[in-house]
Amino acid sequence: MADECAAFMKGTELPVKRPREEEAETEMEAANNSNNGCEKEESSPYISSVLPGWFSEISPLWPGEAHSLKVEKILFQGKSDYQNVLVFQSSTYGKVLVLDGVIQLTERDECAYQEMITHLPLCSIPNPKKVLVIGGGDGGVLREVSRHSSVEQIDICEIDKMVVEVAKQFFPDVAVGYEDPRVNLHIGDGVAFLKNVPAGTYDAVIVDSSDPIGPAQELFEKPFFESIAKALRPGGVVSTQAESIWLHMHIIEEIVANCRQIFKGSVNYAWTTVPTYPSGMIGFMLCSTEGPAVDFKNPINPIDDESPAKSIEPLKFYNSEIHQASFCLPSFAKRVIETKGK
Amino acid sequence: MADECAAFMKGTELPVKRPREEEAETEMEAANNSNNGCEKEESSPYISSVLPGWFSEISPLWPGEAHSLKVEKILFQGKSDYQNVLVFQSSTYGKVLVLDGVIQLTERDECAYQEMITHLPLCSIPNPKKVLVIGGGDGGVLREVSRHSSVEQIDICEIDKMVVEVAKQFFPDVAVGYEDPRVNLHIGDGVAFLKNVPAGTYDAVIVDSSDPIGPAQELFEKPFFESIAKALRPGGVVSTQAESIWLHMHIIEEIVANCRQIFKGSVNYAWTTVPTYPSGMIGFMLCSTEGPAVDFKNPINPIDDESPAKSIEPLKFYNSEIHQASFCLPSFAKRVIETKGK
Repeated sequence: MADECAAFMKGTELPVKRPREEEAETEMEAANNSNNGCEKEESSPYISSVLPGWFSEISPLWPGEAHSLKVEKILFQGKSDYQNVLVFQSSTYGKVLVLDGVIQLTERDECAYQEMITHLPLCSIPNPKKVLVIGGGDGGVLREVSRHSSVEQIDICEIDKMVVEVAKQFFPDVAVGYEDPRVNLHIGDGVAFLKNVPAGTYDAVIVDSSDPIGPAQELFEKPFFESIAKALRPGGVVSTQAESIWLHMHIIEEIVANCRQIFKGSVNYAWTTVPTYPSGMIGFMLCSTEGPAVDFKNPINPIDDESPAKSIEPLKFYNSEIHQASFCLPSFAKRVIETKGK
Repeated sequence: MADECAAFMKGTELPVKRPREEEAETEMEAANNSNNGCEKEESSPYISSVLPGWFSEISPLWPGEAHSLKVEKILFQGKSDYQNVLVFQSSTYGKVLVLDGVIQLTERDECAYQEMITHLPLCSIPNPKKVLVIGGGDGGVLREVSRHSSVEQIDICEIDKMVVEVAKQFFPDVAVGYEDPRVNLHIGDGVAFLKNVPAGTYDAVIVDSSDPIGPAQELFEKPFFESIAKALRPGGVVSTQAESIWLHMHIIEEIVANCRQIFKGSVNYAWTTVPTYPSGMIGFMLCSTEGPAVDFKNPINPIDDESPAKSIEPLKFYNSEIHQASFCLPSFAKRVIETKGK
């Protein structure tokens, strides 16, 4: 079906990001019934932009390059209140979740991102108890947080209900995170949610956002970081998705400068390999608030490799060595990041 | 020109690797005169395989995925005795060198590979004096070796003269390595060259090869590693290109097992980020022969960041921290590599 679909849609334009306020066209149910295939040309603008039968990731955030995955079958496509949602079965990376034309996860390599964005902060503080996840609607970060037996409360605020539903339907090994009874799901705007959080509530906040074009734009701005700092206890930690040093040094510079103004404990940049993300890697900001010192580079809360629930597989990627290594930067990035805002 | 060229060649088949023994069709000079553009459909099978105006890297070594770069202009295409050679100006990665359809280097990210494959071995031993480079015809590894002031002799054996000539013509900042008076260039088969090297000649051997399909196939096999071990002094070191843990674990397993049989000092696997290589990373085998112990993970010969020659830019990627970090592996790879052949 994918092949015919792509061939049919060959004339379609390259993807353009939809602004947040644009009205939703389809509910998930409707999408499931009528768009789950290639009936409508305009509903699948991404498959068409490359050779027939391939999904190609083209974005102004990484001009001049595109990573493509061979499509076996389109499993879902819909448009939520916030973004285009696509799920397809790839030839060699398992099932793939795409939001607004950008790959969010593949079954083959999601372990790297989910494990690193979660355990880098949680293994850096003793006995994390209350954790907030902003974004992360697929449930993968929840799955990782739930490995920590000290955690008592896991709040998640995801703006897009369709992402949660799609994850539960197509990515059971990722959405398994929702099965943990400590999890409280809030569908809503993370920025608004944080404003209502009493000061000093959380030990850790994890911001698992998409790129800073579209629904996640505010999650890269200063007021949002200020809300996080307020929501954290003294010596609390935050981990945020922070783009690629190969592609987005200008964005990273700004984020680092903002964080240095707001987080008075420590401010660090780490990264991990993720084959299906642009440039094959992604970075994280790891910051702590004023209070008990947090030395992110030397994890003090090693994770027990025994899985807390039978339904969750053992860690595939994270270990204490790769934790420490992830803070080592190539010289070109080190020069910029270590001096910025100091 | 690239756009028209690609559109014209749209019907061309996907690339197929040429066997080594296949006869050369064009000399570099002829290629330069007659093929430097898109006159001949069959001479540019790679540009056509994706959307018009883009180069797409498709190979049986990474089925189901393809990285594409937007082509501004094709600068050179020819066929040597060993492989298809293509140089193009990309939109966002500078000039790009492609052999048999596989990206070898881009101006934007070549620093990562060249610096790591060179300084990981040379910074792990005191005062390297004699260094052999197998492959590496572009000159980038030579450029990096030449930063080490202790080195007295740099031999290089590259099989394909066209690669050397193309590098000198189109990649002056890479081929600058040839300007060092310590460099002796041998055009020929690295396997044969090594057989004639007196035992114990070199302090370090660096194998900068393409993938194990085509001209470089023998450089991944056991007899070749045995020749290297013989050519090294006791406690000498070798660094070889060793593929990606995300894509080629089966190849890596075999290489590691072979190396453990042959190199009785130490056997290690390291990796680095390289955005334009498949999966966004590449690995290296770092091994030493029996003799004075080599602890690759703790570099003892830090490189002076002062450039040895005015024509060479300072290091962009390598530093002692990233050296140490490069040996830390994700758990899924660590489990396989650390147990293999033990």
